[in-house]
Amino acid sequence: MKSITSRDNPLYKELRHLATSSQARRKAERTLLDGVHLCEAYLQHGGVPQLCVVAESCLAHHEVDPLLARCAASGTQTICLPDVLYNALSQVEHGVGLMFIIATPNPALPKSVDQSSVVLDNLQDPGNLGSILRSAAAAGIKNIFCSSGTVFSWSPKVMRSGMGAHFLLNIYENVHLEELLKDVRIPVLATSSHAAETIYQVDLNQPVVWLFGHEGQGVAPELMDLATHNVTIPQRGEIESLNVAASAAICFFEQVRQSL
Amino acid sequence: MKSITSRDNPLYKELRHLATSSQARRKAERTLLDGVHLCEAYLQHGGVPQLCVVAESCLAHHEVDPLLARCAASGTQTICLPDVLYNALSQVEHGVGLMFIIATPNPALPKSVDQSSVVLDNLQDPGNLGSILRSAAAAGIKNIFCSSGTVFSWSPKVMRSGMGAHFLLNIYENVHLEELLKDVRIPVLATSSHAAETIYQVDLNQPVVWLFGHEGQGVAPELMDLATHNVTIPQRGEIESLNVAASAAICFFEQVRQSL
Repeated sequence: MKSITSRDNPLYKELRHLATSSQARRKAERTLLDGVHLCEAYLQHGGVPQLCVVAESCLAHHEVDPLLARCAASGTQTICLPDVLYNALSQVEHGVGLMFIIATPNPALPKSVDQSSVVLDNLQDPGNLGSILRSAAAAGIKNIFCSSGTVFSWSPKVMRSGMGAHFLLNIYENVHLEELLKDVRIPVLATSSHAAETIYQVDLNQPVVWLFGHEGQGVAPELMDLATHNVTIPQRGEIESLNVAASAAICFFEQVRQSL
Repeated sequence: MKSITSRDNPLYKELRHLATSSQARRKAERTLLDGVHLCEAYLQHGGVPQLCVVAESCLAHHEVDPLLARCAASGTQTICLPDVLYNALSQVEHGVGLMFIIATPNPALPKSVDQSSVVLDNLQDPGNLGSILRSAAAAGIKNIFCSSGTVFSWSPKVMRSGMGAHFLLNIYENVHLEELLKDVRIPVLATSSHAAETIYQVDLNQPVVWLFGHEGQGVAPELMDLATHNVTIPQRGEIESLNVAASAAICFFEQVRQSL
């Protein structure tokens, strides 16, 4: 294990840059897994980190110790930092001080979309994206296609909110959604408060594509035109809208319910 | 309309205090509605603000103008601020510069809980609370009971995420949940990943209490003991958990579905 004690150490500067700049993460095609829970989930799903970073005070922590051993066994280098340097990298308050640097997964697009999938057009809020990824993973949906305008899936905020769902999913980013949807042969469902058909009336006992959009503006019109079904979630109140992550959860789990 | 141009003006200092300190808002029993959408929803549901604050550059904005007229008609004073002073009060970036100061609603507890309700034990995340309030309002559930450890409902963050749902609901805060639940005669449902009964097997065509807890620790054991049903949302993936706001949306809308 190597120790770094100076802020001016080139590797520390690089870590600091990765931790604080989303542009740096995109450019380096690397990201940070911040906290024991995410690191553990990553290893559990077969990931091999590029680098492990641990806060000095957490070296002997009972949750950290087995993860350090697994890193050592797979040849991953561990860097130990004084807490004050570590805390400048982490966004987790009062957490256990362990993080991984990993290569950002970037899977190749599948030849065709024939399994249930989620398509996200310009979704803006990291918490919403994380919640949607978590709900999709819990509902057994594996493929997520994001437009270039959608918030970056592998940002620390989205990963915290996703609680490890990322590692169960194939997340395709910067996808040209119009091109993708043109070739889809399974139903493409978009929710709309004006639709006549409810989600309960659609046969979800088959693979479908769920299409969700921007929190304020919804799905772009040219993509709405490619939906085969506009469906509504019937509501009982005076408010005619749901948070997009709440809508997505209701849709995904209506599909689970129909499959029971 | 009165103009304030100095940071040292006592009323401006008071506003600044309200805008930046959650403690100040609790103590004054007043809160801020930040942005045109929330202000409009408040008026629409019969609210009368204590004070209206407008940014100078938005005085003639087409969405602001009718709201200023309604404030004038109801005798609410409007204060105009230079943009630089206004922006120091607002958390909304690139928004239309209008806010209301209102008395924080603080309804008296009902004599009995006989309508469908939501009970929140130590919920921590403002975005989750706002999403739950929005989903409840959309599902036609009116009563929300929050423990003293639950995040404050009338904070600007929760209100932004609630999108006006607050004004459709009776939100009871600092409620002693054990005392409340002891006297409840309708089913009290708590979600649990270990339960044998699914939400689809429970008769939701009757008023029920939905009980949700802390994002990490769930519902406190002494409250779980007061639930009449432990129910599960069947899942299909390797992840055995959902975000609490996603769970709540699925539960509330399963109740709506059963009522169709």
